[in-house]
Amino acid sequence: MAHRRTIHEHHFGWDNSLAPAVTIAPGESLEFEVTDAAGGQLSQISTVDDVGRLDFARVNPVAGPVYVDGAEPGDILKVTVLSFAPSGWGWTANIPGFGLLAEEFKEPALHLWRYDDRTLAPCAFGSRARVPLKPFAGTIGVAPTEPGCHSIVPPRRVGGNMDLRDIASGSELQLPVEVAGALFSVGDTHAAQGDGEVCGTALESPMRVALQFDLVKQAPLAFPRLITPGPVTRHLDERGYQVTTGIGPDLMEAARAAVRSAIDWLTREHRMPAIDAYMLCSVCGDLRISEIVDIPNWTVSFYFPRIVLE
Amino acid sequence: MAHRRTIHEHHFGWDNSLAPAVTIAPGESLEFEVTDAAGGQLSQISTVDDVGRLDFARVNPVAGPVYVDGAEPGDILKVTVLSFAPSGWGWTANIPGFGLLAEEFKEPALHLWRYDDRTLAPCAFGSRARVPLKPFAGTIGVAPTEPGCHSIVPPRRVGGNMDLRDIASGSELQLPVEVAGALFSVGDTHAAQGDGEVCGTALESPMRVALQFDLVKQAPLAFPRLITPGPVTRHLDERGYQVTTGIGPDLMEAARAAVRSAIDWLTREHRMPAIDAYMLCSVCGDLRISEIVDIPNWTVSFYFPRIVLE
Repeated sequence: MAHRRTIHEHHFGWDNSLAPAVTIAPGESLEFEVTDAAGGQLSQISTVDDVGRLDFARVNPVAGPVYVDGAEPGDILKVTVLSFAPSGWGWTANIPGFGLLAEEFKEPALHLWRYDDRTLAPCAFGSRARVPLKPFAGTIGVAPTEPGCHSIVPPRRVGGNMDLRDIASGSELQLPVEVAGALFSVGDTHAAQGDGEVCGTALESPMRVALQFDLVKQAPLAFPRLITPGPVTRHLDERGYQVTTGIGPDLMEAARAAVRSAIDWLTREHRMPAIDAYMLCSVCGDLRISEIVDIPNWTVSFYFPRIVLE
Repeated sequence: MAHRRTIHEHHFGWDNSLAPAVTIAPGESLEFEVTDAAGGQLSQISTVDDVGRLDFARVNPVAGPVYVDGAEPGDILKVTVLSFAPSGWGWTANIPGFGLLAEEFKEPALHLWRYDDRTLAPCAFGSRARVPLKPFAGTIGVAPTEPGCHSIVPPRRVGGNMDLRDIASGSELQLPVEVAGALFSVGDTHAAQGDGEVCGTALESPMRVALQFDLVKQAPLAFPRLITPGPVTRHLDERGYQVTTGIGPDLMEAARAAVRSAIDWLTREHRMPAIDAYMLCSVCGDLRISEIVDIPNWTVSFYFPRIVLE
């Protein structure tokens, strides 16, 4: 990838008045140096105390923005994910006040990971689990039309922190352009995450990301969409799943119940501390909506891949 | 399966005062003759007019109840799904007032399916799509402790109409027992369904189902859980997915947006009538919660398997 330009510039927040770091033509590709979601505030020698000291003004940096020549509101920006060059280390944290079960897990926690950046072999989580890896970009999007600086934390119509774990190598993401040049940025790379990212963080890991950009003129999209070239869970589905459910009239509460039951299963039958089970669920378990039509109760299921425990 | 007893008795609603159709000991297996969710009101020669004439007092029959000797409140009833003997025909309908996009699809619709009950080869949906099949039981559960007759439509703590599409051959379902004997019943067999069952019906199909029953004494569960012995989507994931998203502070609205975009994609780029796209999404597309922690906006994704369109 030596011939590609590498973008080192980072910014905080989505803001359509930011000066572009680079201008490219459709068809070009770029490499991005992506810092982890803590913006370098956590390292391979961090301790749980550093989680409590995080400066939230410096979290969620994104690399960019990229001005794509000719992009106009109403176009689609097509982003093909070419490759990731992972760093080989990462972290997962429970950040107080953040996460699906924030009311139950109020203390900070930190797990540091070392993984093989060449083989991406499943990575040990203590002595009890090994997590299959699949790098992807958690935050990827374009600037919104509304003026001002908008937090990176929530995703929105134009993408951003979608944490859609299949924005992985080979996938094609389609983003709705809202401002001239699109003003694309990317950040928050993850080496592994389940659907839901239930504890609030994934296997957060700095990486370089190579992306190619194209335009589809005047094809309005309501929200981002994605094409994956092949299966998305074969790296972890081989031994099947332990599935827990939450059933009721509120999808959020049903999701909480399903994850709570998964943690209960891991603590009782696999003798894992609850906070470890919660963080493990975040990096490999999947929240699915099994049914959303059987009035008035919906079924939300949490699929925990059994291969992780073998 | 000739040596097993077959349960032909059906009932409507969950009611712990119903007389058991059969009493068995733990370890025994049974076969159930399961009628489709319309209780025989739709057939292989039905038309859309029959959807408008459905008598809702006769929908959602379940076969049972089975009294499991020794089952007591606080136990787990383990149900191993041994096999399905599918009938080879089925239906998918849009029933006015029912379904995730009921406000947008107000007219009744009916699609009849014929499939190979031996090979379970992917089944044609018009000339545009072929749907991989995997039979499962949409409604499976035990009687609740509350007296009276409770509708089969909503699932609840003790299971029921969970429409959890991996309660398929080889899986082990664990149900929380609330009354003496458990009073187990099963119904609503589907030959195919995606996570969400978004149009409100699946590939509804009568089948015989063979199940084995065991007890785990005094092991309280908050909600049902399931163990699948192997991968759950390899019958349809080979060509990857078209993924659409809905992003916002309400999971239900985000789910609607994601499905709406999937229908839009199928109608614009695959020239499919919207109502057909909606029903097709229901039998093969999956609603996943990609993130549920990036305050205040959640990402719900709808994964449509590309192999269906090839």
